[in-house]
Amino acid sequence: MSFQKKIINDPVYGFISIPNALAFEIIEHPFFQRLRNIKQLGLSNYVYPGANHTRFHHALGSMHLMMEAIKELRSKEILISKEEEEAAIAAILLHDVGHGPFSHCLEGVLLQNIHHEEVSLQMMQSLNTELNNRLTLAIEIFKGKYPRKFLHQLVSSQLDVDRLDYLTRDSFFSGVAEGVISYDRIIKMLNVKNEELVVEEKGIYSIEKFLTSRRLMYWQVYLHKTVISAEQLLVKIFQRARELNAVSQLSFKTPLLEFFLSEKNKTEQWIDVFAQLNDAEVLTNVNYWQHEKDACIATLSRMLVNRNLYKIHLSNEKISTVEIENKRKGFLNKNIVAPELSHYFVFEDVISNYAYRLDVGQINILMKNGEVVDVLKHLNHLNIPIFTEAIIKHYICYTV
Amino acid sequence: MSFQKKIINDPVYGFISIPNALAFEIIEHPFFQRLRNIKQLGLSNYVYPGANHTRFHHALGSMHLMMEAIKELRSKEILISKEEEEAAIAAILLHDVGHGPFSHCLEGVLLQNIHHEEVSLQMMQSLNTELNNRLTLAIEIFKGKYPRKFLHQLVSSQLDVDRLDYLTRDSFFSGVAEGVISYDRIIKMLNVKNEELVVEEKGIYSIEKFLTSRRLMYWQVYLHKTVISAEQLLVKIFQRARELNAVSQLSFKTPLLEFFLSEKNKTEQWIDVFAQLNDAEVLTNVNYWQHEKDACIATLSRMLVNRNLYKIHLSNEKISTVEIENKRKGFLNKNIVAPELSHYFVFEDVISNYAYRLDVGQINILMKNGEVVDVLKHLNHLNIPIFTEAIIKHYICYTV
Amino acid sequence: MSFQKKIINDPVYGFISIPNALAFEIIEHPFFQRLRNIKQLGLSNYVYPGANHTRFHHALGSMHLMMEAIKELRSKEILISKEEEEAAIAAILLHDVGHGPFSHCLEGVLLQNIHHEEVSLQMMQSLNTELNNRLTLAIEIFKGKYPRKFLHQLVSSQLDVDRLDYLTRDSFFSGVAEGVISYDRIIKMLNVKNEELVVEEKGIYSIEKFLTSRRLMYWQVYLHKTVISAEQLLVKIFQRARELNAVSQLSFKTPLLEFFLSEKNKTEQWIDVFAQLNDAEVLTNVNYWQHEKDACIATLSRMLVNRNLYKIHLSNEKISTVEIENKRKGFLNKNIVAPELSHYFVFEDVISNYAYRLDVGQINILMKNGEVVDVLKHLNHLNIPIFTEAIIKHYICYTV
Amino acid sequence: MSFQKKIINDPVYGFISIPNALAFEIIEHPFFQRLRNIKQLGLSNYVYPGANHTRFHHALGSMHLMMEAIKELRSKEILISKEEEEAAIAAILLHDVGHGPFSHCLEGVLLQNIHHEEVSLQMMQSLNTELNNRLTLAIEIFKGKYPRKFLHQLVSSQLDVDRLDYLTRDSFFSGVAEGVISYDRIIKMLNVKNEELVVEEKGIYSIEKFLTSRRLMYWQVYLHKTVISAEQLLVKIFQRARELNAVSQLSFKTPLLEFFLSEKNKTEQWIDVFAQLNDAEVLTNVNYWQHEKDACIATLSRMLVNRNLYKIHLSNEKISTVEIENKRKGFLNKNIVAPELSHYFVFEDVISNYAYRLDVGQINILMKNGEVVDVLKHLNHLNIPIFTEAIIKHYICYTV
Repeated sequence: MSFQKKIINDPVYGFISIPNALAFEIIEHPFFQRLRNIKQLGLSNYVYPGANHTRFHHALGSMHLMMEAIKELRSKEILISKEEEEAAIAAILLHDVGHGPFSHCLEGVLLQNIHHEEVSLQMMQSLNTELNNRLTLAIEIFKGKYPRKFLHQLVSSQLDVDRLDYLTRDSFFSGVAEGVISYDRIIKMLNVKNEELVVEEKGIYSIEKFLTSRRLMYWQVYLHKTVISAEQLLVKIFQRARELNAVSQLSFKTPLLEFFLSEKNKTEQWIDVFAQLNDAEVLTNVNYWQHEKDACIATLSRMLVNRNLYKIHLSNEKISTVEIENKRKGFLNKNIVAPELSHYFVFEDVISNYAYRLDVGQINILMKNGEVVDVLKHLNHLNIPIFTEAIIKHYICYTV
Repeated sequence: MSFQKKIINDPVYGFISIPNALAFEIIEHPFFQRLRNIKQLGLSNYVYPGANHTRFHHALGSMHLMMEAIKELRSKEILISKEEEEAAIAAILLHDVGHGPFSHCLEGVLLQNIHHEEVSLQMMQSLNTELNNRLTLAIEIFKGKYPRKFLHQLVSSQLDVDRLDYLTRDSFFSGVAEGVISYDRIIKMLNVKNEELVVEEKGIYSIEKFLTSRRLMYWQVYLHKTVISAEQLLVKIFQRARELNAVSQLSFKTPLLEFFLSEKNKTEQWIDVFAQLNDAEVLTNVNYWQHEKDACIATLSRMLVNRNLYKIHLSNEKISTVEIENKRKGFLNKNIVAPELSHYFVFEDVISNYAYRLDVGQINILMKNGEVVDVLKHLNHLNIPIFTEAIIKHYICYTV
Repeated sequence: MSFQKKIINDPVYGFISIPNALAFEIIEHPFFQRLRNIKQLGLSNYVYPGANHTRFHHALGSMHLMMEAIKELRSKEILISKEEEEAAIAAILLHDVGHGPFSHCLEGVLLQNIHHEEVSLQMMQSLNTELNNRLTLAIEIFKGKYPRKFLHQLVSSQLDVDRLDYLTRDSFFSGVAEGVISYDRIIKMLNVKNEELVVEEKGIYSIEKFLTSRRLMYWQVYLHKTVISAEQLLVKIFQRARELNAVSQLSFKTPLLEFFLSEKNKTEQWIDVFAQLNDAEVLTNVNYWQHEKDACIATLSRMLVNRNLYKIHLSNEKISTVEIENKRKGFLNKNIVAPELSHYFVFEDVISNYAYRLDVGQINILMKNGEVVDVLKHLNHLNIPIFTEAIIKHYICYTV
Repeated sequence: MSFQKKIINDPVYGFISIPNALAFEIIEHPFFQRLRNIKQLGLSNYVYPGANHTRFHHALGSMHLMMEAIKELRSKEILISKEEEEAAIAAILLHDVGHGPFSHCLEGVLLQNIHHEEVSLQMMQSLNTELNNRLTLAIEIFKGKYPRKFLHQLVSSQLDVDRLDYLTRDSFFSGVAEGVISYDRIIKMLNVKNEELVVEEKGIYSIEKFLTSRRLMYWQVYLHKTVISAEQLLVKIFQRARELNAVSQLSFKTPLLEFFLSEKNKTEQWIDVFAQLNDAEVLTNVNYWQHEKDACIATLSRMLVNRNLYKIHLSNEKISTVEIENKRKGFLNKNIVAPELSHYFVFEDVISNYAYRLDVGQINILMKNGEVVDVLKHLNHLNIPIFTEAIIKHYICYTV
């Protein structure tokens, strides 16, 4: 296949160029094209109607920022070979290829006990065989095995191009101005010291803004209470579907989904089946489940399709047993389902969030004197806790 | 239902408020919620990956602009009653409720011989019954029967809030800067004279820009050759599905879609079935059709899913019989399908476009001296033809 | 004078309408027109070349946000009379009318010992006489004497429309994305409780973002070290000009400036003279002072005109006497001026900043339960210090 | 001087890098720093209060686009040497260095009978001497003498980076959305054929949009009737100042301005004096002229300072003698100045504009078949006239 330089309109960055033939081949591959139908933000569009952007678009955007980062580093005389460039681009393009329908929303539900990064890795390995091992270096970088650590850090760290793109893109499409970051300024401040990625000291305010924006995006978008409510509803629908399917009580299901609702997904062949799944498949099933005989799944499905979501109450403290019991009694009075199914309609759980984690690799600042320090040492010591302590919120979902 | 003032984040306008209880009830209705899964621009996201915005979002945006227009007119002492406001808002919210999957793309394919505006009207009438005739005035306005013409013109004319929103929104999400218009300036220039909508003279350049943008958006987005190629592919898939279904050769189809593939849609009940259809249903079927025994539909479906589209050649002249025959022969040499099915893979057609039509209601300019003239009389006479003559392009789609 | 509704293009908000005849008269008045030639951000354009926006534009923008806030409050059934609206608009239009050339930069230098708010007040009183006491209520609101406190709080508090406009506008024109705030969301969250301005609880993240943005704008723009360097240079030039003028050694000075360089500004008539001063007057004098016989002022002026600024070193600790002495010796070796004038070329000082002050009126949050609490009680307690403790930076300016 | 890579925040493009040491030296030079105080759009800020951007900023923006264009061409394997890059950058940085106060507004008034491009050239030559002939190649390119024509065309043609920047920048700062162009897309479509600049065929809609935007910007900004009124007022003030100065009746004038008001500017030394002039100098003089004994200049100056401009009436036909006489009589009745000075207060003139000129170098389109054609041949023939025929407007300015 001969490669033609191609540019793609992106409302976020203006234009994105596909930089090389390998990137072009990856993008053309069905594994990657599938991402066109995987929403980046799950069901956030129930709150932010503009947030219909896809993993496909996010992967292209991350590729664009990776190219910008590489150009910037080269202009600072960091040598990056053509092979390394190609591999870093391939790694970032494929870093999320393992996401299932609605991204994080159904993670652990369709494919149980496997994280999307692990799926991405397996899909990359499958693709590597198909591409005659042209992804070997990309996989090394993705796994953090390549000695030049900064390449892995650009793909996956607390300040990677993945985060730079998703904060920028999610903020753009949701319309939440709180999430705007200076991705271009941050990239201009990147450098490499001892093969590790560092940020030049004068970029410190942009990093603080980045950490703050990330925290605010968690509360305003990713963990918005109505988003949680919608996504929990979808999770519960699938739990019920699995139960019904096990006892042959689920009258409608498409073949691909049946695969994941049954026990089959323990077997070897799941990658190929998974690689055909997308949001549409899930939505279509839920649309039909409105008409199932089982009142539980029918009610839940109608709630989702018509956006008649759970009420939700967030709290800093654990939800009291009294409150839970009251909500449950209220629900049971309506006689919609048998009492033992009430946990599908009234339940509590907990969410938490860190802006910056102390237990994974740090963001390094390159001081003017050449020293490298963790960003937390450099930021005024007073503001460490808001970034490093987990913020935990309890919630109860219920119907009235 | 008690109405709470609600605001919605919109990356295009910042915030959209739901102005009254009727609007709120319409938005909550399943007819309207369905639009969350109908892409505004059909398959344009195959070219512009950001163009995943929905009819739902467009309807909300049009509602916002309608409110802005009403506020502007009231500030110019045009009396508009609460009932008229409510009705105009309802009419614009519902103006596109009759769109099927992928909007214009499958129009006339799923529902044959019926335009989406007629479907919208039937759905509005059905909803009117449900809402105890609270939509009667809205329907009058929608149909152009209400004596105060400007209200209909705001909903549907050559300068309505529908167009103001879609040009702005399509340009925003596709990233095509050529489509940017000054919707806010145009709204500030609106006025009413003899119950007809007029634009104040000083807004003339904004109108010219609006007409130019609309023309450029046609060529760059709506009639982009790759978009035509993708949408024609989907149309051909459905034509083949219908043929196969007629002879019981289509092994997979979801129940809703089967309804429309068969002759059933001639019967009365189609509105209820139609009101459950969305993009996901269509995509899911096409996904499975990749594996049909019929090579024709399987090939076409794989082409769409993997974005391996028709090649397309546009021309000012009719495509020559020689060229068509050559492409057909080239295709047949590959022995994919029987010769009589080659028209699914090689075919020609024509598209056309007007920026401004002389045969439907004009855009009126209110001169400083109080006179009202058609915008074409006011714009420098030299530039009439580019706006009023149809531009016709012939094309051939083919596979290699 | 008859009032015509007038709209003004603003790249920040799209369009600004002048809402009433009094506002129109104020804007037409020479006091207000003078602000066209007063840069909002002093000499920040030496660092951010787009930051040439004026106090004129900022005052119009603040007027726009005041109208938006009033509309929002009215939609929440807070009664605001036509007279109160007019007065609040007048007060915000005139709140900064007392700024002199380059805004804060020369505050206390041209007019010694008088704050710009006091000058604004005196100019408002002078204008009130001219306008037959139509500004009396505006002045009451401005001074905080009017019983409905929220009107004053909209004009001047820790969350007033002044700040909402300047953060938005300064961020827009400088291109510093870190300063972007959700001014529109904040306004939609405003409410009034017991005649005090409050923010509804769901606006809490926007307030946190607002406080963070303000803090970052201080470090990245308002107190950017190169901006301090430029502005200190201009201050030193004026100190020297005053010294020279006192001994009749300043050969060039325009009449208006001479008034302020001499002792005349102690007398009554200064308001009329001040009302003619602008940036151009100052720049013109500095341009000529490059050619003064006095080497001190000539050198300083050439430094400013050619942007050959002081070097500056910021530090968390007081600058050591050793460092100061070393810089001074280095400078004296160049024999540019007499040793006793070296403090014009080498000097140290301190800057500080609060994001939120505990000692002035608080930002009140209206909880869902109807309670009103200070924003700091509501925000996670952990992050109080970064907002409430002064951050103090020492610096030394020097030449090499 | 050692060169440090420096980046500048620009709200229009995000960031601008200074690409090489020569560019850095030019920017640091007093000739270039002077442009900080020359408004790009003369007195347009009287209509668009955001339009305070400077020639300094425009020159930096043009430099940025030149670098982007060079990068694009290189990616298409057009060889451009380091020396050519440096020279093209220098040429575009300096292309407008000869602009006087308020850019085009006073062109031909301060310096009579000399176009700003000629002044730029003379200043470049003076700078070349200072820089040891490092600008020789830049000057060749600027003058169109260098054999590789495309470099000159990037600096100065009907589709140069100057126009791409000024349309984008003027639209951004004025807030006139009609002027938005796809500068980034146009740059991505540039190519070189036979050493001439060409646009690839698929960029044709962006070029049409560019020509349309330019035409609309002329009418909405550059030739906005209130802008003409303000700028004509300033021109008349200077004409009167010159008359008064010739008979020693002008009591205030700064030395630099006196040079240009007298006959001295015929002599050799004018470049050095001109290189110190800026907007501030002009504004300061006009501010004082409000108090001249001569009622004519005093009245005109007060009109400008207080934005009490001429009324202006535009017309497609020549203003009738009757209308002129009526306005003159009306004015004379007020007895402000002697009848022979009435032409300062009532006068007529004509403006015209072309979007695309047939008599200077064309915009070339590179067809897919390799052929190069003028854009007008390629655009639908119907729309040629609006771009190529001059549009002429007559106007009368008067006072009431």
